[in-house]
Amino acid sequence: MGNSLSNQTIILLSRPEGMPTERNFEFRESEVPEPQAGQVVVRSIYLSVDPYMRGRMNEGKSYIEAYRLGEAIAGGVVGEIIQSKSDHYQVGDKVLGMLSWQMYNVVEAKALRKIDDSIAPLSAYLSVIGLTGLTAYFGLLDIGRPQEGETVVVSGAAGAVGMVVGQIAKIKGARVVGIAGTDEKTQYLEKELGFDAAINYKTAGNLRDALQQACPNGVDVYFDNVGGTVSDAVMSLLNDYARIPLCGAISSYNSTDEDLGPRIQTQLIKTRSLIKGFVFADYAARTNDGLQDLVKWLSEGKLKYEETIVEGFEHVPQAFLQLFEGKNLGKMLVKVNER
Amino acid sequence: MGNSLSNQTIILLSRPEGMPTERNFEFRESEVPEPQAGQVVVRSIYLSVDPYMRGRMNEGKSYIEAYRLGEAIAGGVVGEIIQSKSDHYQVGDKVLGMLSWQMYNVVEAKALRKIDDSIAPLSAYLSVIGLTGLTAYFGLLDIGRPQEGETVVVSGAAGAVGMVVGQIAKIKGARVVGIAGTDEKTQYLEKELGFDAAINYKTAGNLRDALQQACPNGVDVYFDNVGGTVSDAVMSLLNDYARIPLCGAISSYNSTDEDLGPRIQTQLIKTRSLIKGFVFADYAARTNDGLQDLVKWLSEGKLKYEETIVEGFEHVPQAFLQLFEGKNLGKMLVKVNER
Repeated sequence: MGNSLSNQTIILLSRPEGMPTERNFEFRESEVPEPQAGQVVVRSIYLSVDPYMRGRMNEGKSYIEAYRLGEAIAGGVVGEIIQSKSDHYQVGDKVLGMLSWQMYNVVEAKALRKIDDSIAPLSAYLSVIGLTGLTAYFGLLDIGRPQEGETVVVSGAAGAVGMVVGQIAKIKGARVVGIAGTDEKTQYLEKELGFDAAINYKTAGNLRDALQQACPNGVDVYFDNVGGTVSDAVMSLLNDYARIPLCGAISSYNSTDEDLGPRIQTQLIKTRSLIKGFVFADYAARTNDGLQDLVKWLSEGKLKYEETIVEGFEHVPQAFLQLFEGKNLGKMLVKVNER
Repeated sequence: MGNSLSNQTIILLSRPEGMPTERNFEFRESEVPEPQAGQVVVRSIYLSVDPYMRGRMNEGKSYIEAYRLGEAIAGGVVGEIIQSKSDHYQVGDKVLGMLSWQMYNVVEAKALRKIDDSIAPLSAYLSVIGLTGLTAYFGLLDIGRPQEGETVVVSGAAGAVGMVVGQIAKIKGARVVGIAGTDEKTQYLEKELGFDAAINYKTAGNLRDALQQACPNGVDVYFDNVGGTVSDAVMSLLNDYARIPLCGAISSYNSTDEDLGPRIQTQLIKTRSLIKGFVFADYAARTNDGLQDLVKWLSEGKLKYEETIVEGFEHVPQAFLQLFEGKNLGKMLVKVNER
């Protein structure tokens, strides 16, 4: 048996304590097995690295199963069918799936979705019209519900989810204020994406004062990707009946200390505000509605996106680690093969 | 002019810093003025003292205007019409209103609502079928939405709102666990009100462990009246898609320190839970729906209530202060006149 194709897999060697390092991962080589009936071989083109993966590296269930020690890391992958024993796929088809961090994945056809690069570049299926775009779409519109003239603040605004959130809020007629961690990012948000204001939380001095200036009418929607002290500052500026979609808390993912801060309950009562945690899976049944809008806005030029693409399978762990240094503008992807 | 009736008024003399004391209040005497056309004179029978009043004693707007220095404290009052220059009221009518802490209030007829002591005792209009009962009703059913077989935890469970919350949750078929601060209260909740379990947070040792034991299937709804470390413990036991109506945070009302604790964002994301602050006024338009159910459950014996009644107008400040020592079982009222 065997395929004469040599595979590489990135496995979780040890669970990170605090900030992950490359030593938590190991590259293993193997032979790509022959596909069985109903299976296909997918050659990876782009791998997605995402902050939520950090949670899966811990022991114990969160909203998604933990990665197992000694087994492959998995995530969003775009690839090309190079062998098919399924009626549903032909060699050359481009596909999307939750697959292992491998050069080749041998999987059941039903684990994949066919994608069409005449609609958008392949990489977009992992970003603006993928999990991150849909996460932004449903969190903002279903929980945040921005109304025309309201003020929407988004943290992690130059990240993959954040920049889609801000642009959809603009489409809905809101005033949009982004928070990010470099001047390059804040300038991009203001100049390229049309945010009404963007604040560099690292250089703003008193973030609450800076936010208050950028949000003269207070905050109606806070789309939170980061948690921590950035969120503490935003929470103090909520208007009555504010809505807070909780998407991520990247500031705390690698902390080994208890995440202590001002309790928010009193502020929520005073303003009768709503906070809700969510993940895209909560809205999976409405995927097509979301994609329809996102693709339409893309084609109308109302929605731009940015990708930070690292080249080479050997750099996947490094690209993942860079997420926590805020090295990415938009979606962080690794290109592991030419198409 | 004048009425030959001597009045007493309790005014806010100074804004409390931290725990209020009797020195923050002053009793003033005056003559009761003659009612003008459209006005009535109400002789107070019961005055309501409530934790939310503490917030109104601070400077600055919360969800309701601050009391003004040198002016009367106001709150829920049940009384009897003793003079009427309105077609809507006759002497002897019993009424409910948001009135001043006074022996007599001279007010416009439209500031009052007529109440019927054949449906329930007068005091009930300030408790189980008043603001507190309706607050419990709408917060639990609109935000908490308990389903049959789910677990509902309520803090401040032996207070006016908490004991109605627990009983409605039982009516809806939930497992109900109450948290209170004395053994007398926990025994009352278990034995008289049929709570499945009640925990004395002051003697429980590790509250989280005690809660975990009382909630073997986790927590689906947490009706929060207290905030602080009690809430920290409950938050760590949330099930997926938990709902948390935020009604009060009495543990922090008198604190002069910043209210620091574990940030809850990560837990909310992991469980995709919802928290919402609310006050009864958000549901004022649906008052009659709520009253209909509450009166029905009362008449069916499914809803019991308890009142801690202090006698004498001179004891109003003291009764208010006792709220923060947890001296009350159920609704704290002051009886200032016989009916």
